[in-house]
Amino acid sequence: MTQTLHKKQEPTITSVTDLPTSEAKWVTLQKIEYTDQTGKARTWEVASRKTRSAKAGVDAVAIGNILLSPNRAPSTLLVIQYRPPLDAYTVEWPAGLIDENETAEDAAVREFKEETGYEVTKVLSVSPVQAADPGLSNANMQMAMVEVEVPELEGEGEQVLPEQRLEDGEHIERVVIPLGELYEKLVEYSKRERFIVAAKLFHFAAGMDFMKTQKYGL
Amino acid sequence: MTQTLHKKQEPTITSVTDLPTSEAKWVTLQKIEYTDQTGKARTWEVASRKTRSAKAGVDAVAIGNILLSPNRAPSTLLVIQYRPPLDAYTVEWPAGLIDENETAEDAAVREFKEETGYEVTKVLSVSPVQAADPGLSNANMQMAMVEVEVPELEGEGEQVLPEQRLEDGEHIERVVIPLGELYEKLVEYSKRERFIVAAKLFHFAAGMDFMKTQKYGL
Repeated sequence: MTQTLHKKQEPTITSVTDLPTSEAKWVTLQKIEYTDQTGKARTWEVASRKTRSAKAGVDAVAIGNILLSPNRAPSTLLVIQYRPPLDAYTVEWPAGLIDENETAEDAAVREFKEETGYEVTKVLSVSPVQAADPGLSNANMQMAMVEVEVPELEGEGEQVLPEQRLEDGEHIERVVIPLGELYEKLVEYSKRERFIVAAKLFHFAAGMDFMKTQKYGL
Repeated sequence: MTQTLHKKQEPTITSVTDLPTSEAKWVTLQKIEYTDQTGKARTWEVASRKTRSAKAGVDAVAIGNILLSPNRAPSTLLVIQYRPPLDAYTVEWPAGLIDENETAEDAAVREFKEETGYEVTKVLSVSPVQAADPGLSNANMQMAMVEVEVPELEGEGEQVLPEQRLEDGEHIERVVIPLGELYEKLVEYSKRERFIVAAKLFHFAAGMDFMKTQKYGL
């Protein structure tokens, strides 16, 4: 993964300017006026996506995935990509916006194929709708958990993976991590310069690690 | 919890209007121009908070907590509050913005006291910085995991809890959940009308549940 990133040039921000709400295409700012529990009038500022699927009523789906290969411990495929809002490489599960007329499950299968090149073998579950960052935005998402049966994987971390079907401008590196080492690997990624792990993935891994190491008799 | 919420009136949104970037106090929209990995010039729209602490360089802290009471199974305290961006009650771990000159750990101890009334007994860990919603915003956060020793708790879910020190406009209900039932309880909350669980908390609980129920030999 690192090798491939370094073959290309590093993305560089050339300017950051205030964006008038009226000119924004993907995101908007809104002012909510509301009456609170005590009857008092209050306001709240919110950032919203302009792209929410009407059918799903949900912005995005993240794809928790279990890669089952004949010659590997159960693993998970993560994607690493440059994210301009953070000027950093994020480590995430594959994810994407739900298109008009798609369900979260449809979008999970489509996005997984596009971003990783693998076909989902089985959708194990689709979570309830969750609030992505409730103090700041109305963004919401669902997590699909999927199993993916794959052929023998080669190499240590730098596997030969199938071809992706990326949209213009998408540069997504893929890395396969043993599920049993997920938490430790994410802590390692967090220490790398210009890398940051997405909170949802980190929290899932922290929950796994908590369960594994807790001394509360759970 | 439900009882208390219903004693008061339901919050109601009275208007939603586009908010010009120049008038926003808490949030802003920006246009990022950048050069991607292939040398091509691209743009990205980002929502940012205007309140980031310079000392911490991090917006917020969430407080994963283990409540230890002489007469209860190890539990966790969740907060439920009306969130205007979603027009819904969110179920979250206590959390808050990091003030100027605070570290994430300082903020965790302060916010936990303010939102729950309890003193943190011990900070077990503070996570690396995580990206809250990397496609949409530059918002970032750290998770602190804390232990809180509390006196005997009464009742079933509707405990007598210490007094909160809430800021004006904060209406935060607290609920104590056995840690071993966290995932199941969050799924139940998700089914209630006008309730939504925050993604980070849900992912942590899903990770716990995954570890407990997985058949992959982890």
